[in-house]
Amino acid sequence: MNNMVISTRIRLARNLKGFSFPHKLNHKDAEEITSRVQNALAPIIKDFTLVKMSDVDNVTKQMLAENGTISPDAANNRLCRVFIKKDGGAEITVNEEDHVRIQTLRRDDNIDAAFELVNRLDDLLDESLSFAFSDKYGYLTACLTNTGTGMRASYMLHLPMLEKTKQIKALEGEIGRFGMVIRGSHGEGSEAVGSLYQLSNQVTLGKSEREIINDLNNIMKQITAKEAALREKVKGDAAFEDVIFRSLGILKYCKTISAKEAMEHLSNVKMGIESGIIKDKEDNIYNIMTDIQPSVIKKKEGQALSNAEICKKRAEYLNKTL
Amino acid sequence: MNNMVISTRIRLARNLKGFSFPHKLNHKDAEEITSRVQNALAPIIKDFTLVKMSDVDNVTKQMLAENGTISPDAANNRLCRVFIKKDGGAEITVNEEDHVRIQTLRRDDNIDAAFELVNRLDDLLDESLSFAFSDKYGYLTACLTNTGTGMRASYMLHLPMLEKTKQIKALEGEIGRFGMVIRGSHGEGSEAVGSLYQLSNQVTLGKSEREIINDLNNIMKQITAKEAALREKVKGDAAFEDVIFRSLGILKYCKTISAKEAMEHLSNVKMGIESGIIKDKEDNIYNIMTDIQPSVIKKKEGQALSNAEICKKRAEYLNKTL
Repeated sequence: MNNMVISTRIRLARNLKGFSFPHKLNHKDAEEITSRVQNALAPIIKDFTLVKMSDVDNVTKQMLAENGTISPDAANNRLCRVFIKKDGGAEITVNEEDHVRIQTLRRDDNIDAAFELVNRLDDLLDESLSFAFSDKYGYLTACLTNTGTGMRASYMLHLPMLEKTKQIKALEGEIGRFGMVIRGSHGEGSEAVGSLYQLSNQVTLGKSEREIINDLNNIMKQITAKEAALREKVKGDAAFEDVIFRSLGILKYCKTISAKEAMEHLSNVKMGIESGIIKDKEDNIYNIMTDIQPSVIKKKEGQALSNAEICKKRAEYLNKTL
Repeated sequence: MNNMVISTRIRLARNLKGFSFPHKLNHKDAEEITSRVQNALAPIIKDFTLVKMSDVDNVTKQMLAENGTISPDAANNRLCRVFIKKDGGAEITVNEEDHVRIQTLRRDDNIDAAFELVNRLDDLLDESLSFAFSDKYGYLTACLTNTGTGMRASYMLHLPMLEKTKQIKALEGEIGRFGMVIRGSHGEGSEAVGSLYQLSNQVTLGKSEREIINDLNNIMKQITAKEAALREKVKGDAAFEDVIFRSLGILKYCKTISAKEAMEHLSNVKMGIESGIIKDKEDNIYNIMTDIQPSVIKKKEGQALSNAEICKKRAEYLNKTL
């Protein structure tokens, strides 16, 4: 497995014939769509939990948004529903940007397994739901950029050296020609936090799902090979090892730390583990990156925590975990 | 004992009647003075080692300059000699700025013991040497600022909070009125490294040795009380503890570090120990500050080390010592 691939995500956008797209949907129709999806899922509905945006607390919403299950906008959309697979393997979002979005996220690089899973769910829903589909354009979606396969496939990649050497910008141009896009992940806008980047297909029209996945794989392999070459070049460098170990020292000893700063140090430590420079740690760093997000700390420690208290709790957690 | 006092130093400047001051001294007279001092020390000469600047290697010179035994100028003065007490308790420098300088350095705040020791050596030398002395001015010295008692008494103080809050400058003005001066120690010019400051008497004329020492003690107590009050104010502060523990983390994990940066972190760690925030370490930080100086590392690891190699050796030493 490629250890610079943090996770793999595939999402299919689908809409039901005969209903307005969600941004124009009325309450009655929204409920109708939810109930149709629920019925379509009947054979496996016991595997899912239904989460209604109108019912959940703000911290849970923040968590769903932070881990990418819903968009930040959807968190405030009372009509939005999410069927969350109890094993964490998949979600079906209803009345978000599209009527139905089937998505899966894996903590490895097995994109074929991811594709197989969403495909199976898509087939099941397709048996009883009537999806809006044009022979000329493919699946119709609320946003034109999704029309066609309705598929967005992506890898989250850990690219600290490409970032430090400012080569990400150049990559953006190169891969754009293949209908791919790379952007900061876990950050506001396109800013990357923890040197984590989302590589995904931009184009969903005029290519089959298989072609999109093949192109994505090729580009992912080229990018991670570049990252590996940059790391190889500085291996054994005192300055390079210094950056990595100082980050480890700070995480082990800080008494207050922001999420953004912690993400930078965790990224360095992760690179150290991936490169074999830090030898006595397993690479559970991405889990730690998830655990230090404000919503997760609030969920664990108390929702009324101030920002200063969160920064202290985060430091405590990092001190003992690293 | 006041744990902000790193060390206490007293130095007496003396000159022999009938000889030019050292900067105009010829080789023959310089040798004559050395031999007279040696004879005067006869009853206790077995306690001393004689080091000749013309004979020692550059690293040893650098060490003698770094620990204040000789001035950096004296290191290049082939006529300069130092009688170093084998127990490390005192030195008598010959043909440096003055013909004879008697000095002692203690790693505590016992200035009375320091004064008693230099006084005893002064009495012994005075028995057989004829010191240049004026009834009106006192001891005559090469530099007018030393004329009078010829005594310079000083404390090395650790004042990180006064430094961080930029109150040192104001102190300089206040204590100037009492004939005292505070300046960075271990730094080039007056820059303080490791927040270490030398508090000493500026005036040697018109006061007795006892008066000078009393004034110095009073001012030292006021300054360290101010430093203690500043520390007390931020005790329990996450931001304050964060600075201290991050410094500890960096020292434990860095892979290359300059002396200047290491001194800053050691100063923070020392403050943490002094303030009881770091509980599991003894305060041997000043020894570590001494051990990481370039000359000491070269002496231990090899004189041909490049600066980059010294920075790596320093990091290695700090990683395992802290």
